[in-house]
Amino acid sequence: MQKFQADTPGVTKSEIDTPALLIDIEAMEDNLERMADFFRGSEVRLRPHFKTHKTPIIAHKQIAAGAKGITCQKLGEAEVLVGAGIADILIASQIVGSQKISRLAGLAHHAHLVVAVDQADNVRELSQAVSAAGSSLRVVVEVDVGFERCGVLPGEAAVSLAELVSQSPGLEFAGLMGYEGHAVFVTDRQSREQAVGEALARLVRTAELVRQAGLAVDIVSAGATGTYDMVGRFPGVNEIQAGSYVLMDTRYREVGVGFRCALTVLATVISLPAPGRAVIDAGKKTVSADFGLPTVISPDGLRLVRLSEEHGILEVDRQAEALRVGDRVELIPSHVCTTVNQNDRFYALRRGHLEAVWPIAARGKSQ
Amino acid sequence: MQKFQADTPGVTKSEIDTPALLIDIEAMEDNLERMADFFRGSEVRLRPHFKTHKTPIIAHKQIAAGAKGITCQKLGEAEVLVGAGIADILIASQIVGSQKISRLAGLAHHAHLVVAVDQADNVRELSQAVSAAGSSLRVVVEVDVGFERCGVLPGEAAVSLAELVSQSPGLEFAGLMGYEGHAVFVTDRQSREQAVGEALARLVRTAELVRQAGLAVDIVSAGATGTYDMVGRFPGVNEIQAGSYVLMDTRYREVGVGFRCALTVLATVISLPAPGRAVIDAGKKTVSADFGLPTVISPDGLRLVRLSEEHGILEVDRQAEALRVGDRVELIPSHVCTTVNQNDRFYALRRGHLEAVWPIAARGKSQ
Repeated sequence: MQKFQADTPGVTKSEIDTPALLIDIEAMEDNLERMADFFRGSEVRLRPHFKTHKTPIIAHKQIAAGAKGITCQKLGEAEVLVGAGIADILIASQIVGSQKISRLAGLAHHAHLVVAVDQADNVRELSQAVSAAGSSLRVVVEVDVGFERCGVLPGEAAVSLAELVSQSPGLEFAGLMGYEGHAVFVTDRQSREQAVGEALARLVRTAELVRQAGLAVDIVSAGATGTYDMVGRFPGVNEIQAGSYVLMDTRYREVGVGFRCALTVLATVISLPAPGRAVIDAGKKTVSADFGLPTVISPDGLRLVRLSEEHGILEVDRQAEALRVGDRVELIPSHVCTTVNQNDRFYALRRGHLEAVWPIAARGKSQ
Repeated sequence: MQKFQADTPGVTKSEIDTPALLIDIEAMEDNLERMADFFRGSEVRLRPHFKTHKTPIIAHKQIAAGAKGITCQKLGEAEVLVGAGIADILIASQIVGSQKISRLAGLAHHAHLVVAVDQADNVRELSQAVSAAGSSLRVVVEVDVGFERCGVLPGEAAVSLAELVSQSPGLEFAGLMGYEGHAVFVTDRQSREQAVGEALARLVRTAELVRQAGLAVDIVSAGATGTYDMVGRFPGVNEIQAGSYVLMDTRYREVGVGFRCALTVLATVISLPAPGRAVIDAGKKTVSADFGLPTVISPDGLRLVRLSEEHGILEVDRQAEALRVGDRVELIPSHVCTTVNQNDRFYALRRGHLEAVWPIAARGKSQ
């Protein structure tokens, strides 16, 4: 019997109980540095997306590496960030309904919040709420640059909404955001660059129209890990919302994004029931499959072929014939964000030794 | 501005903040009753699977409705159950590794645990651990009845492992389990019944061989929500592991299972950016899509067509032209188990009024 605690710093990777999300700290630091290099000397600033890791200490590291602030999607995520001492936050989604708007107006007393809008009634409700609360909010107008999710159409619709924001008590018009989600995973880099260019032209042209209407446009925000370098060089955009770069996954690796895969899932072989088949203790409830099955990186000779809720079923080739029940298997997720959101903590390792356990504090903060 | 707390009992469905998992208590009670009816007067007993709801109060209701005990998949789930006063637990999976085996041996002092095995070394480790801890364990041998996940082959391999268990200090051989996972979702009921029959014949024949070897076989466990009635009538099986029946989902409804869909997801329209398109605040991180997209049940005229991480994108037909930002949308998940595992609480309603908020205490207990 082992006598150590599995979460005591210093234990080796193989001593951590499973399933577990591991972060290779050096790979993560390389990613932070690589991204910082890109923005060094540029007027464009990174505002990384919290949805990927939902973990305040990683957000603090991103800011220490030069990020302007943090982007998040949910009000509950913003509350976790503010509680962790991070004040400069873009909520890149519409906050709707009187309960959430009240929470937002209260939170605005404790942070520098920017929130996205795409609808006039929502602007009026935000204005009323901050007026009642005695707080204030900065607001960006979300423009649909071709992803066909949220956002007003580029052009006059966006200008009108920007004007309404600027005239609303308690609100400050801060600029525009767009998300070129339809371009992010275009495999061919040249095609991706073209799709990004078309999307951003809509955003930047709209920013010009807003300026022509007499409003200052402080923020023009877009971008993701698959497009940050294209967006970051596009004249007129000045904030990037990339998230996945810090931990990465196979989906982004497949489209040629050069960051290191710092996140892995550690699992244990719990059954070798038949020749050529192994079963591990990590299933869909640990590692997501919405972007495809995760990829085994060690040991050699294993291939994941199926995920049940709590089991992963692997094909074992001759190379892995020595595999035993109890052996560890390490995988890279296909989608970091949906994997992280199912787990309570990261096990952060440096050179194979546990350095820290980080609670995923905003996990499940969907409200 | 609303003045109520969104989680105060008595508020109406439309006042609950979103996204939220709702339970229709009466539908759930009907499901408990319908399942209890099936087992009334039978020697076969239900031991419902905790993986579906991960919520102790629902497990207690299942026991109050006649269930013999609870099935779970993970040791961490068993720990939550024991902490909630539920002592009769089948862990329907292999517990591997010295850390987990130590936890299991300790937990066995506080509950009546049955654990699945499919491998001789694991049996030896379990025996050593309970001997060291001064506790004891009941053990079922898992037989692969055709699902090709875990389990020894039917027949002699299972008999040998059963004999090893029976000879191991601190362990009591309790019986066999098999999971006919390959049959559970066979759409055509007759084909499903045939697949179930073939699978269970392997299990029951193996139980006979074990008895012929001189061992008592107390438990012969199998079954799921899609097969409980077939398995429950199959001579020689005496425990059923169905889980989803209590809350249900569209995947089981599609194969003709008659329980009521008691679980829904409540969401809010956060954007109506273009004619024919609405966006809600529930995405993949709230409601799973591993068994297909969830189904909108209200209002009429909406169809979910895409899920991002935190957004659901809907097609809006003429019937729903009056839809407004802030309106509530209610959906039935395609897969209850993976949906529940992403959320922290259930909002339990009776006739449209909130009755209780139930923490999903074993959410994410993957270790």
